[in-house]
Amino acid sequence: MTTVKLLSDQEAEANPAIKLVFDDIRTTRKSDFINNFWRGLANDPALLKRTWEGLKAVMAVEGTLDPLAREMIYIAVSTANGCSYCVHSHTAAARARGMTDAQHGELLSVIGLAAQTNHLVTAMQIPVDPEFDIP
Amino acid sequence: MTTVKLLSDQEAEANPAIKLVFDDIRTTRKSDFINNFWRGLANDPALLKRTWEGLKAVMAVEGTLDPLAREMIYIAVSTANGCSYCVHSHTAAARARGMTDAQHGELLSVIGLAAQTNHLVTAMQIPVDPEFDIP
Amino acid sequence: MTTVKLLSDQEAEANPAIKLVFDDIRTTRKSDFINNFWRGLANDPALLKRTWEGLKAVMAVEGTLDPLAREMIYIAVSTANGCSYCVHSHTAAARARGMTDAQHGELLSVIGLAAQTNHLVTAMQIPVDPEFDIP
Amino acid sequence: MTTVKLLSDQEAEANPAIKLVFDDIRTTRKSDFINNFWRGLANDPALLKRTWEGLKAVMAVEGTLDPLAREMIYIAVSTANGCSYCVHSHTAAARARGMTDAQHGELLSVIGLAAQTNHLVTAMQIPVDPEFDIP
Amino acid sequence: MTTVKLLSDQEAEANPAIKLVFDDIRTTRKSDFINNFWRGLANDPALLKRTWEGLKAVMAVEGTLDPLAREMIYIAVSTANGCSYCVHSHTAAARARGMTDAQHGELLSVIGLAAQTNHLVTAMQIPVDPEFDIP
Amino acid sequence: MTTVKLLSDQEAEANPAIKLVFDDIRTTRKSDFINNFWRGLANDPALLKRTWEGLKAVMAVEGTLDPLAREMIYIAVSTANGCSYCVHSHTAAARARGMTDAQHGELLSVIGLAAQTNHLVTAMQIPVDPEFDIP
Repeated sequence: MTTVKLLSDQEAEANPAIKLVFDDIRTTRKSDFINNFWRGLANDPALLKRTWEGLKAVMAVEGTLDPLAREMIYIAVSTANGCSYCVHSHTAAARARGMTDAQHGELLSVIGLAAQTNHLVTAMQIPVDPEFDIP
Repeated sequence: MTTVKLLSDQEAEANPAIKLVFDDIRTTRKSDFINNFWRGLANDPALLKRTWEGLKAVMAVEGTLDPLAREMIYIAVSTANGCSYCVHSHTAAARARGMTDAQHGELLSVIGLAAQTNHLVTAMQIPVDPEFDIP
Repeated sequence: MTTVKLLSDQEAEANPAIKLVFDDIRTTRKSDFINNFWRGLANDPALLKRTWEGLKAVMAVEGTLDPLAREMIYIAVSTANGCSYCVHSHTAAARARGMTDAQHGELLSVIGLAAQTNHLVTAMQIPVDPEFDIP
Repeated sequence: MTTVKLLSDQEAEANPAIKLVFDDIRTTRKSDFINNFWRGLANDPALLKRTWEGLKAVMAVEGTLDPLAREMIYIAVSTANGCSYCVHSHTAAARARGMTDAQHGELLSVIGLAAQTNHLVTAMQIPVDPEFDIP
Repeated sequence: MTTVKLLSDQEAEANPAIKLVFDDIRTTRKSDFINNFWRGLANDPALLKRTWEGLKAVMAVEGTLDPLAREMIYIAVSTANGCSYCVHSHTAAARARGMTDAQHGELLSVIGLAAQTNHLVTAMQIPVDPEFDIP
Repeated sequence: MTTVKLLSDQEAEANPAIKLVFDDIRTTRKSDFINNFWRGLANDPALLKRTWEGLKAVMAVEGTLDPLAREMIYIAVSTANGCSYCVHSHTAAARARGMTDAQHGELLSVIGLAAQTNHLVTAMQIPVDPEFDIP
């Protein structure tokens, strides 16, 4: 059950603004597969376009972080925000970019550790050490 | 203002269980600096020991993720969990491990993007695509 | 699977304290439908009564915010807190109060944007501008 | 800096609806001290009244959980929700109800552990075991 | 203390990519004031540009939600995400758009109520009623 | 659907590092049942071992908090972090340790109340009263 309709390919084809984005997703990803997230966003073509362009600008360009590192950071945020869909989709994306079982295990270890110390710090209300200041 | 006392070096020295951990932190990190987090945890020496050993096992060992990637994942979780202290301390640690301004900018970009799509997914209650299943 | 029993109409009828609240829900909402949330809370009649009276005092009275605006704010909080049930129930309530697809799209846009900037601010630890002070 | 004015005793005295609640807080707690939370809520006397009555009904009555256990649960939720003020105020309340350093250390241990396993579970998307069903 | 430098007007003027965005912020908002958020983002001109354009497209255009409603939704999300800066800046923005004390009180009431029922639902693991399905 | 494989007993038996932990779980809990959480963690035997030992040290030892109080705190954190699995597993554990319906109702009441006041405090940005300082 969703709170919006998930648009079919046929419905998407019928609206040029949606078709343009779906075509670009397919070209950029070199795949015919359009996942449900975009089919939901397509209810608002302007939001669909902005979200896809934002994602493309961050995830689908050359940069100083390699694509796998970006996917792992994405998984970390999605986990902390409790987004099941996002954890699934970005774990699949990380696997597709070569994440090994060992790397996944280390990612989980860091996520779990960070959550633990985040909560300990908050419960103790620890003040920031001046040594952490960025000169 | 904290909810626990932050133990001074003198107080830590007076308790062998605490001293052992503080000495190991200093040796492992090759630095005399003990940040406030450990001084707060020292109120419960068993919790201090467990937390330090957990952190050392995840962050201070060779693995398949490089130390900078681990710090970035730590920052991502700490941001989503809203832990100011942790954001400060692990951004400082990432800088110390060579994070450039460009890398920090990309890290922020991924964190912001993930948070945005996490919330969009949750608001639309998008079902997981079967294609994301791990075979 | 729940962590409490969901009380049937028959079980609710058998307890006067629960029956009183269920009757008031039906009268206030002009509908026979009692959703699962109240059937779960009914395990603790005092908690059921307090929660219903709190909700009625906020959502079912005349005020300076129109009922649709209140439902949208409710959806926003429920999304950020990751409550699937609440997102579903209050999106349905907003639809029942006339929310259009265009309004829903704008609501999603604001929610996504806010989440993105919330995380960017936290990751940068931006200090509050004095200009934001309420005189 | 706050987003609402904190009402002084003089301002509170001038409004009978506020005065009634402040008087009841003082009587119930057997103390003249009104903390800032109530001074902020007093901008909306109806919200002040509802919130105080809700809190009194949960925290200031006889029940099956002892008052210290309730304060510890309050600290746990406040920590996970990242509310500094609430962590401070309810840790002070727990201390006033006799929480020892050892109990505080155990509380922190459980909070940190729960946060860690919460995140591990979410990152792995573990399905609920049928054995956990409440018969 | 921040994790990035906050760029001064002089530093911003020296970089055409930043200057372009700062100029557009000033023109769009009809004010010389550039708040700290943008001064932090300016460390990464591409992120600055994307974030500003995203915000402008959602918050500074005509739409079906009035500007005050959008600010209130922004406050709601920022509160649930625990972003102090965002709560301050968007409460100030809502005040500037005419939010009255009574409206603020109702906003707070809905936020508090939603948080309460979000947590109750999650603790009881209530299943979504089929009646909430969007036809 | 999970993001890791859930190891069967046969697969666990085949790896001595996993077998050792599973045996200890069974011995400590005096039950043959190994829940899915451990079967997922078993993909990374070192993470499995660390997590189990951390949990055993906090939850399965004598201390100043009774086992039921610890389970209730665990439920509180898990609820605020939105972890369905954890809410289910620790509510089952609390029931097994004797939690009554009345105690569960009070636990829910405190969780809901704390969430409400957490959000109200954050939306008002209430400063910590100096009276809450721990001497």
